[in-house]
Amino acid sequence: MHYTFKNVLGTFTLDEKLNIVDKKVKDAKPLPEDKIPKVLELFKDKKYFKKFYEENLKLTKKSIKSSVTEDQLIMQAISNINELDKTSNLLSKRLREWYGLYFPEFSEQLSSHEKFVELAATKTRKELIKEFDIKDSMGADLGDLHVDEMILLAKEIMSLYSLRKKHEDYLQKVMKKYSPNLLELAGATIGAKLIELAKGLKRLAMLPASTVQLLGAEKALFRHIKTGSRSPKYGVIINHPIIQNAKKDEKGKAARVLADKLSLCARLDFFKGEFKAPEYKKELEEKFL
Amino acid sequence: MHYTFKNVLGTFTLDEKLNIVDKKVKDAKPLPEDKIPKVLELFKDKKYFKKFYEENLKLTKKSIKSSVTEDQLIMQAISNINELDKTSNLLSKRLREWYGLYFPEFSEQLSSHEKFVELAATKTRKELIKEFDIKDSMGADLGDLHVDEMILLAKEIMSLYSLRKKHEDYLQKVMKKYSPNLLELAGATIGAKLIELAKGLKRLAMLPASTVQLLGAEKALFRHIKTGSRSPKYGVIINHPIIQNAKKDEKGKAARVLADKLSLCARLDFFKGEFKAPEYKKELEEKFL
Repeated sequence: MHYTFKNVLGTFTLDEKLNIVDKKVKDAKPLPEDKIPKVLELFKDKKYFKKFYEENLKLTKKSIKSSVTEDQLIMQAISNINELDKTSNLLSKRLREWYGLYFPEFSEQLSSHEKFVELAATKTRKELIKEFDIKDSMGADLGDLHVDEMILLAKEIMSLYSLRKKHEDYLQKVMKKYSPNLLELAGATIGAKLIELAKGLKRLAMLPASTVQLLGAEKALFRHIKTGSRSPKYGVIINHPIIQNAKKDEKGKAARVLADKLSLCARLDFFKGEFKAPEYKKELEEKFL
Repeated sequence: MHYTFKNVLGTFTLDEKLNIVDKKVKDAKPLPEDKIPKVLELFKDKKYFKKFYEENLKLTKKSIKSSVTEDQLIMQAISNINELDKTSNLLSKRLREWYGLYFPEFSEQLSSHEKFVELAATKTRKELIKEFDIKDSMGADLGDLHVDEMILLAKEIMSLYSLRKKHEDYLQKVMKKYSPNLLELAGATIGAKLIELAKGLKRLAMLPASTVQLLGAEKALFRHIKTGSRSPKYGVIINHPIIQNAKKDEKGKAARVLADKLSLCARLDFFKGEFKAPEYKKELEEKFL
């Protein structure tokens, strides 16, 4: 009578006295459960230790390898969009100050950083004076040596803006498969931010809608709890067109209903449900726009 | 007898009774000083107000135009170098985290952000595994869609590093003319930072050497005054090769002597003195290296 026993090291054959035999035996039966503890004792032998260690390491590595999920990829991309926003803001302010030595009137004309940077990078002061109908500039008449340096910075910032757009396209592609409902209703940026703030689609799907409504407004919420200041009405969803375009006295209600639907979207996506977001979207638009 | 009188509006001819006449008169004499107050009364007439306003505006604009100095250009460039350092640091950390999903072992191998970013931008994981003799990676086997996005970020950071280098070259060029001694002894980055911290070459030239030694260490200095923590020995000059390479117990002394010489350099540069920095440099190197 022979038995077979399997563990991470492989399949072993045992004889009747439960000693390991070094050959394959036909008609060996799986080890009965009551005999397992005894066999496990056998494997406490030193010679198996190194093997166990190596096999375990391999398995762990493999499971780490397959543990990277779309969640993590989405979170990295949206985090980088956040950093890029901070960065291009910081550098745009610097450019405005620097370029202001050369052409102070121009910075005043444009409140959008992105537009300012683009024009500073691509047009000469002469062209801008004409385009914006500015009389004479108080700016210093600096040589190319100096102005070129500012233009280099402007071009660099433009390329940061363009990288941000590429990241958004990327998020579109990933979320189209992974969370199509959330993408459809929230858009790539807000949708990804919700996933990031909830630390994953699963947790987002489990959160109550009232929490989804306030994701990203944690600071204001704690301030409200601590000091009794006004409670926040919305977190990152504040930038959603439904809320942006709702009438002023309906914004709070719009936020509540939108959060409800977003929460449903996250659940549909997590449980691989239907594609219902277009319906929700239409409903919201009819109600609030 | 006719007089001439000049102000911002132009040159006027006055007759004997100090009335303005509308023609040029030969042999008119400059107005004697004792008659000036009376003539100034004339110009209180309303018809001159608008002209005065316009002429003054023109003059102010002109003086603003010519008030941009090398100081300001140097300060803008070095401020931007500071922002670029912050920025590339922030984005490099993000890249390490993101790229870590794909190839965690590689980030550990390289402590330099710049080197890490360059390799991530230009080499495939396969090439890096070979080059760094890494066994098998725990990283997820991600498709190009995902990896390309990380490479885009890496390339963006490389371009931030390269802009920093261009700014340094620019500072070299500007300082070569404006503050050659400071450039020679301090280098472009430290020299420009000293000008920035002192808010101009003039003020830097006026500061006592002991203050120059601590420029950039204000936080530590106030902490020292407030809490009695150890007093700082150096500010931005800490990165100077003389201090970096001095023996540990001589660093304090080196900082003092270096600050003395830097202070002399700033004075020579501000008062357009000789080019003595190479002498100072040699002296310091003989003493401390």
